[in-house]
Amino acid sequence: MLKVGIVGGTGYTGVELLRLLAGHPQVQLHAITSRADAGTPVSQMFPSLRGYVNLSFTHPDEAHLDQCDVVFFATPNGIAMQQTRALLDAGVRVIDLAADFRIKDIAVWEKWYGMTHACPELVAEAVYGLPEVNRDKIKQARLVANPGCYPTAVQLGFIPLIEAGLVEEGSLIADAKSGVSGAGRKAEIPTLFAEASDNFKAYGVAGHRHLPEIRQGLTNVSGKPVGLTFVPHLTPLIRGIHATLYGRLKNKDADLQALFEQRYADEAFVDVLPAGSMPETRSVRGSNLCRIAVHRPQGGDTVVVLSVIDNLVKGAAGQAVQNMNIMFGLPEASGLNVVPLLP
Amino acid sequence: MLKVGIVGGTGYTGVELLRLLAGHPQVQLHAITSRADAGTPVSQMFPSLRGYVNLSFTHPDEAHLDQCDVVFFATPNGIAMQQTRALLDAGVRVIDLAADFRIKDIAVWEKWYGMTHACPELVAEAVYGLPEVNRDKIKQARLVANPGCYPTAVQLGFIPLIEAGLVEEGSLIADAKSGVSGAGRKAEIPTLFAEASDNFKAYGVAGHRHLPEIRQGLTNVSGKPVGLTFVPHLTPLIRGIHATLYGRLKNKDADLQALFEQRYADEAFVDVLPAGSMPETRSVRGSNLCRIAVHRPQGGDTVVVLSVIDNLVKGAAGQAVQNMNIMFGLPEASGLNVVPLLP
Amino acid sequence: MLKVGIVGGTGYTGVELLRLLAGHPQVQLHAITSRADAGTPVSQMFPSLRGYVNLSFTHPDEAHLDQCDVVFFATPNGIAMQQTRALLDAGVRVIDLAADFRIKDIAVWEKWYGMTHACPELVAEAVYGLPEVNRDKIKQARLVANPGCYPTAVQLGFIPLIEAGLVEEGSLIADAKSGVSGAGRKAEIPTLFAEASDNFKAYGVAGHRHLPEIRQGLTNVSGKPVGLTFVPHLTPLIRGIHATLYGRLKNKDADLQALFEQRYADEAFVDVLPAGSMPETRSVRGSNLCRIAVHRPQGGDTVVVLSVIDNLVKGAAGQAVQNMNIMFGLPEASGLNVVPLLP
Amino acid sequence: MLKVGIVGGTGYTGVELLRLLAGHPQVQLHAITSRADAGTPVSQMFPSLRGYVNLSFTHPDEAHLDQCDVVFFATPNGIAMQQTRALLDAGVRVIDLAADFRIKDIAVWEKWYGMTHACPELVAEAVYGLPEVNRDKIKQARLVANPGCYPTAVQLGFIPLIEAGLVEEGSLIADAKSGVSGAGRKAEIPTLFAEASDNFKAYGVAGHRHLPEIRQGLTNVSGKPVGLTFVPHLTPLIRGIHATLYGRLKNKDADLQALFEQRYADEAFVDVLPAGSMPETRSVRGSNLCRIAVHRPQGGDTVVVLSVIDNLVKGAAGQAVQNMNIMFGLPEASGLNVVPLLP
Repeated sequence: MLKVGIVGGTGYTGVELLRLLAGHPQVQLHAITSRADAGTPVSQMFPSLRGYVNLSFTHPDEAHLDQCDVVFFATPNGIAMQQTRALLDAGVRVIDLAADFRIKDIAVWEKWYGMTHACPELVAEAVYGLPEVNRDKIKQARLVANPGCYPTAVQLGFIPLIEAGLVEEGSLIADAKSGVSGAGRKAEIPTLFAEASDNFKAYGVAGHRHLPEIRQGLTNVSGKPVGLTFVPHLTPLIRGIHATLYGRLKNKDADLQALFEQRYADEAFVDVLPAGSMPETRSVRGSNLCRIAVHRPQGGDTVVVLSVIDNLVKGAAGQAVQNMNIMFGLPEASGLNVVPLLP
Repeated sequence: MLKVGIVGGTGYTGVELLRLLAGHPQVQLHAITSRADAGTPVSQMFPSLRGYVNLSFTHPDEAHLDQCDVVFFATPNGIAMQQTRALLDAGVRVIDLAADFRIKDIAVWEKWYGMTHACPELVAEAVYGLPEVNRDKIKQARLVANPGCYPTAVQLGFIPLIEAGLVEEGSLIADAKSGVSGAGRKAEIPTLFAEASDNFKAYGVAGHRHLPEIRQGLTNVSGKPVGLTFVPHLTPLIRGIHATLYGRLKNKDADLQALFEQRYADEAFVDVLPAGSMPETRSVRGSNLCRIAVHRPQGGDTVVVLSVIDNLVKGAAGQAVQNMNIMFGLPEASGLNVVPLLP
Repeated sequence: MLKVGIVGGTGYTGVELLRLLAGHPQVQLHAITSRADAGTPVSQMFPSLRGYVNLSFTHPDEAHLDQCDVVFFATPNGIAMQQTRALLDAGVRVIDLAADFRIKDIAVWEKWYGMTHACPELVAEAVYGLPEVNRDKIKQARLVANPGCYPTAVQLGFIPLIEAGLVEEGSLIADAKSGVSGAGRKAEIPTLFAEASDNFKAYGVAGHRHLPEIRQGLTNVSGKPVGLTFVPHLTPLIRGIHATLYGRLKNKDADLQALFEQRYADEAFVDVLPAGSMPETRSVRGSNLCRIAVHRPQGGDTVVVLSVIDNLVKGAAGQAVQNMNIMFGLPEASGLNVVPLLP
Repeated sequence: MLKVGIVGGTGYTGVELLRLLAGHPQVQLHAITSRADAGTPVSQMFPSLRGYVNLSFTHPDEAHLDQCDVVFFATPNGIAMQQTRALLDAGVRVIDLAADFRIKDIAVWEKWYGMTHACPELVAEAVYGLPEVNRDKIKQARLVANPGCYPTAVQLGFIPLIEAGLVEEGSLIADAKSGVSGAGRKAEIPTLFAEASDNFKAYGVAGHRHLPEIRQGLTNVSGKPVGLTFVPHLTPLIRGIHATLYGRLKNKDADLQALFEQRYADEAFVDVLPAGSMPETRSVRGSNLCRIAVHRPQGGDTVVVLSVIDNLVKGAAGQAVQNMNIMFGLPEASGLNVVPLLP
C-alpha cells in the first residue's frame, strides 16, 4: 500500500483526489493538510465523503508528510515550490497539481504567474505529467508537474496533427469552454450561481496562463515554434471542458480518422470516437477519459478537433492519480475505473 | 418627476431597482451611492444597464441625498437605521429594503438580527410595506419597511385563509424554496455555481430571520398568535420563490377558490390562478406579480396554497417601487408593467 | 457470475442499471432488450458507456432472457406484468423497477394506473423491495417490486417515527422535490431544458401515483391508516430527491436523533446525519445512499425530517441492484460502492 | 394602430413576439393562429402572459389575416412560402421568422432545407431583414426575411472587418454557442433538461443550415466569395448566443476599436463595448441588443470578435419587430425598450 499525503485538501482538486483515492485499492491515505481547517473531519466539509474518508484535516506541521511515499499538492500556485525540496530530500515523490513546475522557462513562468520562482533547479528536473507524451519519463520521475485542465484537452487534440506535420503550426486556434469548477472553490462574485448560471462569456482573451503551457507542449512535439490563439470561455457546467480546435491543413488527403485512432490505440484514457461523432462533456463526467473526434467540414482545408475531458479528473486529480500509478509501477488505471455519470 | 436616491446600489436589489426605475416615467435617478465603488460607472459593473443608466456610483458624502424626494436603502441590515432619521428630518421619504424597520418588537428584532437597534422610535412609525394589507397606511407613510421575500410570498398565500378564520392558526407550515439570488451578491462559497447548481437543500431549519416577520404579519391579520413551521430551501434558480403552504381547515365546506379570487380581485399584482393550477416561478420572472393557486388534495382537511413571486421584484425592488408609487400618489403599476420573461 | 438481463434499457433507469452493473464483480450482462433500437450498440446511444458495455440492444424475441438468473424490468408501467409469469416459470427471478407489483390492492392500482392488471396473483407474491423494511422477505423472493423514488425517500424518513408511534398518523405532510430525470427519458415539452431550467413548480397536487404506494408502506408499518398530504415539485436538478417531511409529535420528550440513529445503525445505505445537519442532494449524487436529518424547530411539536436520495440510484437502479444482491446472497453493497460525485 | 397577426404562436419565437407586441404602443394584436390549439387561451399555454394577452389561438381558417397590416410567420420552415403570396396580394406585409425567404439561390436553399420552394419569385423580392445592412430596402419592403439567430450574431461581428477589407475572406472561423431555446419548443430527447443541462457539445459540424445564410450575407458585403468554418455548440442556457469569431488580419495597424465604434455609431441595437471588454450573454437577456467586443490577442495577426445576442430577441422576435417598425415608419425602438434582465 502506498502511503499518500495531500497538501491543501479543501479545494475541488483536493476533494476529487479524495474521491478517487478512497476507491484506490493500493492506496492508504496518510494525511490531508489544511492550515485553516485543521481538526475538522473531512466528511464534515464534504458530506459526500461520509463513510468513505474518515480522516480529519491536519495542520501541516503535524502531518509528517515525510513518511509518505507520495505527496500531492492541491494548493494554489506558489506553495509546492516552497515545500517540494524537503520532501524530495526525504525520499518522497511529489505530484504538483498547481502550475509551479509546468513551465521550463523560468522567466516565462515568472511573467505569467507574477512571482519569483523559489526553486528553478527543480523545474528543470520536473517531468510534465502528460502520460500520452511523457510516460517513460514519468516512470522515473521524482517530481511530476501535473498539466492544467485546458492544456490537457487542447494538447491531446492537437498532438496527432502536429506529430504528423499536417497542420500549419503558426496559426492554431483553440476555442475552449470550461465548467465553473475550473475556477476553484473560492469565494468570488463572478462564479456565484446567480452570476454564472444561464450565462456564457469569454474571459482571458488578452492572455490566459494556460497559453504558455500549451505553447510549450505543442512546440516540444512540433520541434518548431507554435502560434496559438487561445480563447477560454466560462459555461454553466459544474464539470467539463470542451475544446474546439482549428488548424489549417497542409495536406487535405491525409486520413485524419486513422491518424487519431492509431496515435491513441494503446491509450487507456483517450477515446477516439467514430468518424462524424461530436463528444459531449457529460460522456466523461467523473471519469479520467478524454474523448476526441476529428472533422474536416465540407471537405475544406480546415481541420476541426473536438476534445472533451472532466476538468477535475483528466484535467486534474485523475491525471495526477494516473501519474502516481505510472511512477509506482501500478496498473495505470488503478482507482480510475469510474464509469461516467450520465445523465 | 420624483428625485430618487439609492443607497447601496451594488447588490442584486440595487441593480434591480435600477432596472425598474430606468423605465419609470415619473422618476429621475439622482444618485446611487457606494463607498467602495465611488466613481465607477454603474454600467461598468452591470453591463446590462449600458444605455439605460448613465450615472456613476457616488460616495455617500457627496450624494446630497437630502435633495431627493425619496431614498431607497438597498443595503445590508443595520445601515438604514443609522441614516434614516436625518433624511426624514430633511423631508425625504425613505423605503428600506433591508430588515431594519420590519419587526415592531425591538427585543425580537435584536435577538434575530444580533444588533442593538439604533432608532426604536422610528420602528414604531414605520409602515410595513405590504400594499395588499397596508395600502392606506403606506399612502401616509414617511418611512416604509419593505417586506422580505419569503414573507411576501408566504403572507399573500395565507392571508385570505386567516382573515376568513378558516385554518387552525397554531399549526401552519410554510415549505419555501428560493432561487440563489436571494442570498445576495456576496462572495461566499455556498452560493458558488459549483456548489449550488444541480443541488437542492434546506437551510435555516432551526430558525430563519424571516420567521418572526411572517409570524408578526399573520398574527396582525389573525388577531391570535400564529404558530408557524417555516423551512426554507435553496434551489438552483437565479430568481424565484415558490412557497408551498399547508394548513388544517376548520371548515371543509368553504369555497376556497372564490375566497381567494374575491380577496385579491382589486389587486394589480396578485393573480389568483384558475382552480387546479400550479404556478411556475418563471411565470413571474422579472415581474412584480404574485401568482397563487389554492388546492384541497383528495378533498381532505388540509389546504395547500402555492404562491410564487420573483424574489427580486415582488420580493424586493418591485414591491419597493410599488410602495413609492403609493406614497406619492402615482399609478400603482407605474414602471412595473414588465411582461414576465418566458422562457 | 450471475447472468443478468435488462428489459427496456434505453431509459434513465436502464442506463443507470448498466452503469452500476458494468462495475459489479459478480455480474455478467447477458442481454439488454429494446424493440425500437435492436442492433444499436448500447455505447452509441450512451457514449458514457463506451469501453464499459460492449453489448448491443437485442430484440426481445432474440434475447433468451429465460437463460438469465435475474431479469430487471426498466420499462414503462404495464410491461412487466405481461412477461413476468413466463420468466418465473423458467426459474428466472425478476425485479421490476416500474410500478406493476408495488400496490397490493389491485383495485387501487387499477384506479391510479388506469389499466387492468394482467396477473393479480403475482402481485400477492411480489415482495416490496425496500430492504430496510423487508430484507428477510427479499432474500426469499422470486419477484421483487422495486419501490418508487419518492416512496423510498419519504418512507425512510417517516418509518422511525411511525414505528415508535411518535407522530399523529392522520396528518403527515410530505413536501418532495425531484430532479427532472425522474420524469424519464421521454420526448415531452414540460421537461425540455428551456421549460424546466431556471424554473420551479409543484405538480400532481391533486394526486400523484406515488401517494397510494407511500400510504400502503406507512400503513403497514403503522398498523393504522395513515393520512398523508403529498406534494411533489419539479426542481432544476438532473438527479436528486429532497423530501421535507412534517409530522405532529405526540411526545415532545423523545430523543429523535437517537431514535433515527438506532433505527438505521445497521443499514449500509441509510446515513443519519449529526443533529442540526441539512443534507444536500449532491451529497448522494450517483450513490445508493439515503442521507437523513431530523429536526424539531424551535422546540415545537412539529418534527421535520429531511431525506435525500439520488432518484436514479436508491430511488431506482441502485436499490434494484441492492435487492438483487440480497436475493442471491451477495454482499449487499456489491457493485454499489460508488463515491458520490461532488461537486 | 397597426393590426398585427401571428401565424404559429405556440413556439418560443411566437410567445416572444407576444411578449414584445403586448408592450408595443402602436400595435393591436388581431389574431394568433394555431391549428392544434385553436380555442385555447394564449395565457393558458403561457401563464406568463396572463393579464397581458387576452386572445385565444384561432384556427387559421377563421383568423381573417387578410385584414391585418402585417403578419408574422413564427412557423416551421416551409409554411410561410405557401401563404405569403395571398397575403401580399391582399395588401398585407409579411415578416417571416423562418428560413423560407432568406437564401437567394433557390438551389442552395432546396439543398439545405430539403424541400422544393413554393414561390421562388417571392424569394427574389424578399428583403433580408438585417437592419444594420439593409435598412433602406426594409423601409420599402412588402416581404422581409428575418435573419436566423446565428447569422445575426456572426454577421454583425464580421461586417465591419469585411467592409473595411481587413481580414482574409477565405478563412473565417465562427465558433458559436447557443442556448437551448434555439432548438425550439419541440418534444425531442436531446433538448430535455436531463440531457442538455450540465452538458456541452458541438453539433452540426459537418454543415448547419445557417452556414449558407451567413456565407451569402458576408459575400454580399465583401463582394468576394467568403470561406467560413462554422461550428455551433449547444450550451446550457435558456437564451443567448455567444459567437467567437476569428479572422486573419491583412493589416495589423488598423484601429479595430475605432472601426467597430464608427460602423455602429448610429445603430440603436448594436453596442460596441470598450476595448478589452468581454460581453456576457446575460447582458442582453430579454433585449434586442447585440453587444460586441473586438480583440487582437498578444498583438498577433488574428482578430477575435465576441458578439452576443438574445437568440429569441435580436436573433428572432425582436429583430422582427424592429423590421416592422422600419417598414411602417415607426420609431425603430418602439416596443423594444426592454432593459436586459440581470441577474
